[in-house]
Amino acid sequence: MNRFYEAFIIKPGHKVDLSRRNPDETFDFKDKEAALELLAKNNHRIARLQNDLYSEGKQSLLIVLQAPDAGGKDGTINNVFSAMNPQGCRVQSFKTPTSLEQSHDFLWRVHPVVPRRGEVVIFNRSYYEAVLIERVHKFATPEQLEYRYKAINQFEELLEHNGTRIVKFFLHIDKEEQLRRFVRRLKRPEKHWKISANDYPERQYWDDYVEAFEVAMMKCSTKEAPWFAIPANCKWFRNLAVSQIILETMESMRIRLPAPSVDLQETRRLAAIELSRQRHERKNRKPAAKK
Amino acid sequence: MNRFYEAFIIKPGHKVDLSRRNPDETFDFKDKEAALELLAKNNHRIARLQNDLYSEGKQSLLIVLQAPDAGGKDGTINNVFSAMNPQGCRVQSFKTPTSLEQSHDFLWRVHPVVPRRGEVVIFNRSYYEAVLIERVHKFATPEQLEYRYKAINQFEELLEHNGTRIVKFFLHIDKEEQLRRFVRRLKRPEKHWKISANDYPERQYWDDYVEAFEVAMMKCSTKEAPWFAIPANCKWFRNLAVSQIILETMESMRIRLPAPSVDLQETRRLAAIELSRQRHERKNRKPAAKK
Repeated sequence: MNRFYEAFIIKPGHKVDLSRRNPDETFDFKDKEAALELLAKNNHRIARLQNDLYSEGKQSLLIVLQAPDAGGKDGTINNVFSAMNPQGCRVQSFKTPTSLEQSHDFLWRVHPVVPRRGEVVIFNRSYYEAVLIERVHKFATPEQLEYRYKAINQFEELLEHNGTRIVKFFLHIDKEEQLRRFVRRLKRPEKHWKISANDYPERQYWDDYVEAFEVAMMKCSTKEAPWFAIPANCKWFRNLAVSQIILETMESMRIRLPAPSVDLQETRRLAAIELSRQRHERKNRKPAAKK
Repeated sequence: MNRFYEAFIIKPGHKVDLSRRNPDETFDFKDKEAALELLAKNNHRIARLQNDLYSEGKQSLLIVLQAPDAGGKDGTINNVFSAMNPQGCRVQSFKTPTSLEQSHDFLWRVHPVVPRRGEVVIFNRSYYEAVLIERVHKFATPEQLEYRYKAINQFEELLEHNGTRIVKFFLHIDKEEQLRRFVRRLKRPEKHWKISANDYPERQYWDDYVEAFEVAMMKCSTKEAPWFAIPANCKWFRNLAVSQIILETMESMRIRLPAPSVDLQETRRLAAIELSRQRHERKNRKPAAKK
């Protein structure tokens, strides 16, 4: 099954050409059913590993999700991560920076919300927006951008040194699929609140976004914090691929249950004392109840 | 099914006597199976309501969980809340206050982590520790405690005024059940990390804790932010009762999907333009591909 990992990873330092990657890819999965079955199995194993990670309390996992609008970030979170125990799993969304956030460096708002030991955190959008939307709309100069790629790599290194594993997913849909999804939203009243005034105007920048994603992934996919470009036109395949890669990542973390923090021998002694005290109490209580 | 709500609510202003409440209660549920089936149904409905709450983005839900050690807070979270979408659901645990936190008032560390609009937040322990453990161990004077009950009610009122619904659960186990669970932990190596050096010494304060819970619930159960004492010796019944009360609470919130933020007519026009542009592009592309 590690072909997902191999097929979709962005090799560190390699040029990325999204036009040569098929967003419709589903390998030999012909229908949803087989994929859903495997997804359920993966989710079950991921939930167990998350439980162990939380118990271990030493390492953590940061999952970065980026995609074009309607690329499926919310859907991926709901389908892959809702199997996790919410205790120890947190979703952090990044919206347009507030004016306070804009008055700081681009990592200022990110640092306080990175995962603590034992935690799995999903970034729905992330600090990469500073080299995506800000590149496309020229909110940053080429020099600033150049520095940011470096700063991102250094920031991720800092987290890794503290025991955080990082995996980054680009959900790869094509421009036609985005339009299909926008049109579908118009037909479903319960999705109307998701429609943004920017949806259509932003489409004119599609190619610029593609280039921005390619450059970011080329410059910031590292051995320790790899980028994956996930074919995402097909939602069930996207969910399966993401879950598979997360499962493999967690399995490679060599999570170990921690040694008990107490003296078990002494604890057994205390338990025995309590049990005998309880028996004694119960015996004394019974005759009283008969009165 | 609203007998759960009625049976376990602490009526505002009423004296609470936990010894008159049966922690083994399971009503007419004789076995786990029927309860699990109903729990799954509840979880499904809760997940839908959570999705609507998130979409609505106006109200929020704060769930406070308190219990004796081994009372089942973690288990409740895993069984009742893992059905929620982690996007929009957050678990906040409160440990022993840090020295920075201790240098502030007892609500200082709480306020920044209350739910934002659209969010469900579960407090695993809470600001109530300031009138529980701190009362039992006399870290606070009677005057301080008296003030804190009032401050808690005022704080909860502040949140309610901003659209936050609050439900508070006391998981009610008895002293014998706690010991059974402690002993069971000793037999399961994967649970050893949960054993604390304080487990047995704290048992001598059992009656003081019961009293502290009774007073806190009496003083701080309000119409808007009620306390529920959930029979929790039986885990599947506990999960079912909590899920049922949360479901009823959410149903009573009259969650409404928000109106779209865009002009749908105009959006349909933009979609039509894009669709025709795309058809045009596709037509022009095809002959080129044949060359």
